[in-house]
Amino acid sequence: MSAPHPAPVTPPRQDHAFHLYDTTLRDGSQQEGLTLSVADKMAVARLLDELGVTYIEGGWPGAVPKDTEFFRRAQHELTLHSARLAAFGATRRAGVRVEEDEQVRALVEASTPTITLVAKSDIRHVHGALRTTGEENLAMVRDTVAHLVGLGREVFVDAEHFFDGFRADPEHATAVALEAFAAGAAAVVLCDTNGGMLPHDVAEIVAELRSRLEAAGAGEGRLGVHTHNDSGCAVANALTAVRGGITHVQGCVNGYGERTGNADLVTMLADLQLRMGVELVPAESLGEATRIAHAIGEIVNMAASPRAPYVGASAFAHKAGLHASAIRVDPDLYQHIDPRLVGNDMRMIISEMAGRASIELKGRELGFDLTGEKALLARLAARVKQREAEGYSYEAADASFELLLLDEMGRVPRYFEVESWRTTSHQLRDGGLETEATVKLAPSPTAGDDDAAGRRTVTIAEGNGPVNALDTALRAALRSRFPQVDDFELIDFKVRILDAHHGTDATTRVLVRTAGLGLEFQTVGIGPNLIEASWEAITDAYTYGFHKAGI
Amino acid sequence: MSAPHPAPVTPPRQDHAFHLYDTTLRDGSQQEGLTLSVADKMAVARLLDELGVTYIEGGWPGAVPKDTEFFRRAQHELTLHSARLAAFGATRRAGVRVEEDEQVRALVEASTPTITLVAKSDIRHVHGALRTTGEENLAMVRDTVAHLVGLGREVFVDAEHFFDGFRADPEHATAVALEAFAAGAAAVVLCDTNGGMLPHDVAEIVAELRSRLEAAGAGEGRLGVHTHNDSGCAVANALTAVRGGITHVQGCVNGYGERTGNADLVTMLADLQLRMGVELVPAESLGEATRIAHAIGEIVNMAASPRAPYVGASAFAHKAGLHASAIRVDPDLYQHIDPRLVGNDMRMIISEMAGRASIELKGRELGFDLTGEKALLARLAARVKQREAEGYSYEAADASFELLLLDEMGRVPRYFEVESWRTTSHQLRDGGLETEATVKLAPSPTAGDDDAAGRRTVTIAEGNGPVNALDTALRAALRSRFPQVDDFELIDFKVRILDAHHGTDATTRVLVRTAGLGLEFQTVGIGPNLIEASWEAITDAYTYGFHKAGI
Repeated sequence: MSAPHPAPVTPPRQDHAFHLYDTTLRDGSQQEGLTLSVADKMAVARLLDELGVTYIEGGWPGAVPKDTEFFRRAQHELTLHSARLAAFGATRRAGVRVEEDEQVRALVEASTPTITLVAKSDIRHVHGALRTTGEENLAMVRDTVAHLVGLGREVFVDAEHFFDGFRADPEHATAVALEAFAAGAAAVVLCDTNGGMLPHDVAEIVAELRSRLEAAGAGEGRLGVHTHNDSGCAVANALTAVRGGITHVQGCVNGYGERTGNADLVTMLADLQLRMGVELVPAESLGEATRIAHAIGEIVNMAASPRAPYVGASAFAHKAGLHASAIRVDPDLYQHIDPRLVGNDMRMIISEMAGRASIELKGRELGFDLTGEKALLARLAARVKQREAEGYSYEAADASFELLLLDEMGRVPRYFEVESWRTTSHQLRDGGLETEATVKLAPSPTAGDDDAAGRRTVTIAEGNGPVNALDTALRAALRSRFPQVDDFELIDFKVRILDAHHGTDATTRVLVRTAGLGLEFQTVGIGPNLIEASWEAITDAYTYGFHKAGI
Repeated sequence: MSAPHPAPVTPPRQDHAFHLYDTTLRDGSQQEGLTLSVADKMAVARLLDELGVTYIEGGWPGAVPKDTEFFRRAQHELTLHSARLAAFGATRRAGVRVEEDEQVRALVEASTPTITLVAKSDIRHVHGALRTTGEENLAMVRDTVAHLVGLGREVFVDAEHFFDGFRADPEHATAVALEAFAAGAAAVVLCDTNGGMLPHDVAEIVAELRSRLEAAGAGEGRLGVHTHNDSGCAVANALTAVRGGITHVQGCVNGYGERTGNADLVTMLADLQLRMGVELVPAESLGEATRIAHAIGEIVNMAASPRAPYVGASAFAHKAGLHASAIRVDPDLYQHIDPRLVGNDMRMIISEMAGRASIELKGRELGFDLTGEKALLARLAARVKQREAEGYSYEAADASFELLLLDEMGRVPRYFEVESWRTTSHQLRDGGLETEATVKLAPSPTAGDDDAAGRRTVTIAEGNGPVNALDTALRAALRSRFPQVDDFELIDFKVRILDAHHGTDATTRVLVRTAGLGLEFQTVGIGPNLIEASWEAITDAYTYGFHKAGI
């Protein structure tokens, strides 16, 4: 059979013994409140590759325009080192030739080495939702798998509603798996689409299916599992399936997904690798799991739960009381694994000792040896405690923490002094909006009378918003003294409203990420409004950037 | 043996076949960020009683002063209708007579019908943390249980680190259970204190323990289970133990608890009752589960996760275009239970993936019958898709979606017309910040010449930020025409920077939640900057509020 479309870029490679299949970019984006841009998808895919997952399902080309665009760009812009990209789609429509099905064509045009097809396996859905016969459903599976395998693709079949379907009609559910294997599918994935299964249900159905497949001579076909958390058992159901002989698990980072979410991919990875002896990723990659899960949470703007197993901020945090003294004797008595295996840390909560100790550790991380500096550490611990109570958060703003540390050591540089600033937004009658900002800098304290660059400056700038206008005006003011300011770029900007239940007069926290001169760092600002908070984060960013660049 | 303390108020009552034991007030309060006042504890206990749990563990009298106070007040102020109150404490200290142990005395003085004792069952903890012998550990269990049973109390023993302990030394772990039963304990609760077990570990250890107990003639003793979520399997582990013959499960509402939390009590209740046929509470009580879980979340100021099984706000919410058309046919094909059984609801989420079917369903939810309105539905689907591509998100903004629908039907009211607005933030030399806004409204189109309220208005207001100032100025402008504007309050405000990787010139999306006149709703606005986006969300909020209030 000759391929009507170009062959995929990556040739099918050596098969893995076990597949860790991520569907954050497709099923995860069904999570209420989660929307991913193409750029978000690219960034998440790179992090998943770093984690070492076997497959990344990128989306549904042809059905979701952004996903079509993602696959188009991924061909040139996304270099994966360990993961393989999969496109998701449906089997051909009922009564249509597979070559003429537009959605199947879009799937082929996504040019991924792997294609995952969703197929109905519950006869009630075949009748009620597809409105076709069991026979036609099997033909849809057969034709679509064979067509794509003929084009050189690796094909997985997600058997939707498999567990409910098997209960309702085990013959048809089994027949779907058999058709898929016969047509060349590399795996059939049993989906608990409605998420209501409990582990013993999964164990029973997997065992029964396997004996039916064996009897039909298809015992060697690879089975996978795809679970949702509606009964609170998504992870356990997947692990139970693995105990039953399944070698392909699907999930989403941070347990994102429709309704109660999909099985948390990182929890499953850690359980499988650390507790069940399934080697999935290099130990160093697993050691990045906490960082990667949180970074993905930042990108999709839906933070990992502090209570997330393994990677949550609280996952190894102990609230004094009963355990505190024993932990000092032997921490392993009170934690189920060494948190460093997943890149997390044990933390003590509400303990002044722990406060100083963690500041000392943090200082070391930033290159400051604070051993024995008891007074300095105590002052810093007190300041951090007070500022966190005001609304600052240093968890993600190392640069601001380092400025605080430098300040407490009397080593914080004063590159510029702001006299005042002002910003105005004006919506005109024609609907257009004009935003401008003025920034006044005091004369440089070190400048002589003839030093033009050090003079008092008044600059004005327009912007597409007040913060952008202020940033532009500040840069203009700094340029004559520090031409390097143009080497820095604000690349990310995050706003969180604290005490949100006060409506528009709540406290605002802003995180600004800046890149330049080989650096990338984050600063934090707070204030009763976004502009003030942003101003603090931005001025800190330039101070920190100049300092680290040795200016 | 005569009791040195007053007998408990409630006499031991008829034993239940199965215990649902809540420890939100004790183990749940170990959750990072969760602190409970005595009043909070009272309120939570009443809600737990309403839910129909068998036992409520109130705290650790003698160890936590607030808990001592709680039990003192509970004797007079807390009337429980179905639940029984339990006090938690430890077995006597090593080398101390039980009658002289102060902590045991405080436990007795809490005057609860039930006392739960924590005992070590891992020999490594006996040596490393208690610093005593296995023999003395067994004597501590024996003495304390016998003492409290002699005082007429029902005694449960929480066997700490049981699963790890059984793996390390099954003889000692089993001996702890045997001692407890021999001394009169009504249940021995197997605790996965570090939370690292997987379901197959639990199944194996429970089975082995049971056969050892049987062999020792203690096969009739009631066993319980207490699990934590460190491997993501807390609920599944408890259910697995139940399948293994355990008839007492411990957990916390909303899965609160140290580190990754305890097993979610409500999830277990629903799984046991709806999926495993264990009758625990009346059906009407289970029908209150969603309300009660959320009410407890409000009291402890830590909201139930939207993704919580059964009771989460998203637990029965559907986003996929894929499913909407089939849901219209038969909702039961796409939900694992009828959400009304737990007091929850199916919801449709409107997103870029929404097709006509989901918009039709959403319309029905909002009270519009759009059956057969093909052209209207197609126009709406196209508009939603286009606006979502621009950055709008209707997932959480039903009010904005309804305005869009009304607009498409030509029924959107125009309460006011904005001529222009302006806002200024000025940071003064003394560091103070002045923010003000001006809003100009065009004359009301329906106003006659003598209609003072309908005249063109120019208002100015100060605020603690530009959005707050604009909102205040707009309210002032609207007040003469719509005095009801003061019945509305902006109660929440969320900002999301889209395509954040452009720094300060990214697109901004704002969600505003407004309450008033018995309504509570959310609107969305977007724009190149926060102020413009907020302005859209706020003006939409007043338009929607006035319309729904019949103004």
